[in-house]
Amino acid sequence: MRFSIQKSALMQAVQTVSKAVAVRTTKQVLSGILLEVRDNEIIATAYDLELGIQTRIYATEDNKLNIDQAGSIVLPARYFSEVIRKLPDTVITMQVASNYMTEISTASVQFHLHGIDAEEFPKLPTFVGVQGLKLQASMLGDLIRTTAFATANTEVRPILTGINIQCANDRLTFTATDGLRLATHYVGLSDAPKWQAVIPGKSLTELTKILPTGDSLVELYLTESHSLFVTGDTRFYTRLIDGTYPDTSRIIPSTHKTEIVAPGDDVLGAIDRAALIARDRDNHMVRLEIQGDVITVSSNSPEIGNVSETVAIEQKDGEDLQIAFNARYVLDALRALDAAQITVRFNGTTQAFVIEKTGDKSVLQLISPVLWR
Amino acid sequence: MRFSIQKSALMQAVQTVSKAVAVRTTKQVLSGILLEVRDNEIIATAYDLELGIQTRIYATEDNKLNIDQAGSIVLPARYFSEVIRKLPDTVITMQVASNYMTEISTASVQFHLHGIDAEEFPKLPTFVGVQGLKLQASMLGDLIRTTAFATANTEVRPILTGINIQCANDRLTFTATDGLRLATHYVGLSDAPKWQAVIPGKSLTELTKILPTGDSLVELYLTESHSLFVTGDTRFYTRLIDGTYPDTSRIIPSTHKTEIVAPGDDVLGAIDRAALIARDRDNHMVRLEIQGDVITVSSNSPEIGNVSETVAIEQKDGEDLQIAFNARYVLDALRALDAAQITVRFNGTTQAFVIEKTGDKSVLQLISPVLWR
Repeated sequence: MRFSIQKSALMQAVQTVSKAVAVRTTKQVLSGILLEVRDNEIIATAYDLELGIQTRIYATEDNKLNIDQAGSIVLPARYFSEVIRKLPDTVITMQVASNYMTEISTASVQFHLHGIDAEEFPKLPTFVGVQGLKLQASMLGDLIRTTAFATANTEVRPILTGINIQCANDRLTFTATDGLRLATHYVGLSDAPKWQAVIPGKSLTELTKILPTGDSLVELYLTESHSLFVTGDTRFYTRLIDGTYPDTSRIIPSTHKTEIVAPGDDVLGAIDRAALIARDRDNHMVRLEIQGDVITVSSNSPEIGNVSETVAIEQKDGEDLQIAFNARYVLDALRALDAAQITVRFNGTTQAFVIEKTGDKSVLQLISPVLWR
Repeated sequence: MRFSIQKSALMQAVQTVSKAVAVRTTKQVLSGILLEVRDNEIIATAYDLELGIQTRIYATEDNKLNIDQAGSIVLPARYFSEVIRKLPDTVITMQVASNYMTEISTASVQFHLHGIDAEEFPKLPTFVGVQGLKLQASMLGDLIRTTAFATANTEVRPILTGINIQCANDRLTFTATDGLRLATHYVGLSDAPKWQAVIPGKSLTELTKILPTGDSLVELYLTESHSLFVTGDTRFYTRLIDGTYPDTSRIIPSTHKTEIVAPGDDVLGAIDRAALIARDRDNHMVRLEIQGDVITVSSNSPEIGNVSETVAIEQKDGEDLQIAFNARYVLDALRALDAAQITVRFNGTTQAFVIEKTGDKSVLQLISPVLWR
């Protein structure tokens, strides 16, 4: 293996795949990055057996890639990426010498890193003959960002650490719930195959970090055990979570006793401030009272003090109400909605309530109250 | 106590003094900020008994300060600063109600925080009738930044955690050493009193964060037990460290067996890269070899690999040399010097070596080698 390339191009590839490098592992090869050099491309791969990222570099005028000899090696990710990062921004040459020792050099610097036989690196899952689905990168990013925060972050029920992705009736729907809150978001998608899979929320959050901006297309493929997202020259593999996802459609209320429309930023600000006083309590409990045309958000702590803030209601239907909730859940939901105007539907003090962007039913946030004390 | 003020002005005062709030303390009042409201000013103070910061706000057109009633209160710093930070950018009103409960409010929000009687707050040290010394803020910042990193960060010899500040013979000199390296920096200062004090390095590093930029003047006062830095409306108090500072002048070599002049950035880059391979070893050992007109910087690790890099010498006097050192010490020194060209003077493999900016003797960095293995 021997090639030379502009530092910045190799750096970018290494950074792209780094998120899939195993952090704590007893299998040393999983903490490495696989470089495969072929006649006209370099393929960089990291794969911790849950998440795999692979990216390709082809020769361009900018990256000055020049391949002398094909071959492959696994290099320790931590040192390899630091070495590349700290090299001056010039053309660097890499070659494998004897016994997997790999030289990384410029005119004045010569690094040698101990590598590992590429044969030891695990094979990525295969997706031969699987029908794909295309959607815009920005749309996929939105679907993930508006739902991933609602996944469970403990392994008590592993299925809830994933996002349930369903494709049916010309809709692609992402749903996440930790049992106390639920976020669901759909987009229209015509001619899509009927699909369902639960993908780890953390992996999808990593995916958002490497998604291109704008209108670029992402292809999505599923098998029984894995999903694959392809964007440009980069492939993103994740395992699926085994098990049956709960039927969440039944818990979304279709009626309401109280419905209000209010300015999103003002409600978010009021709850954010009230959360300051509530933050040392187990459940971050904040109270919300609807009386007439005014929302009052409040919280109190015997040790710290109290806070009370009013927000004017823009539209109201139904009865007055008092309810208490975990401020963090509502803040997460409001930030995900990022809406100038929100519609909130309540069914009394003890029932879960729904928050939506006013006039847009594509994203729905459902939150369980804290029982009134 | 009752006043109103633009949020941003109060926020800035709170941020300025925050660094002197006690973090871990059993005396609750030390984790608070003292607000003293007088007829025409607000004084904010934090004091953890080591470091004290006090700043004043006078009414201006911008800050809209309006004082209704004098008085004082101590508020818990953590909550008080978060509350101010999260309030909308508008005029806020503060008043003490009964039993030290303090109201912080805008048109729509009302916070109440439990305060503490201002009488419980410790008094700052006094500096009555002490002769001051003036120097430029940027100059003081440089003196601290080029020396503070070399203080000891363990309390084995408490005196070494401080910077030794000496004023004599029209020179103000800052010196720090942890026993393995030493940094010293002087500036000319005419008509200055004869002074000596050891000030905690960490406190001085905090001071650099609130120093104004440019030509503003800072006044420095000393007593037997404390120092005071005055800049604009802010006062910065630190205790002095008891004890006798070692006589460091004797350990700075006046001769050399090898002297080289080399490009600062190239040497820094080479050592930074070599440190990558050395960083998991106890002493971050990097080797430097001077042979003919070339410096070779190298390091190796049986587990990771090795690196070797050459830098051209611009001028050389004396014999060839091999030496090894802790890369972190040399990197700290080179970053402090921030010099396009450096002069390094060696006295063989086992003696400490000196790094200076070429042609400038005002800053000197002295570093002990690691004995050759």
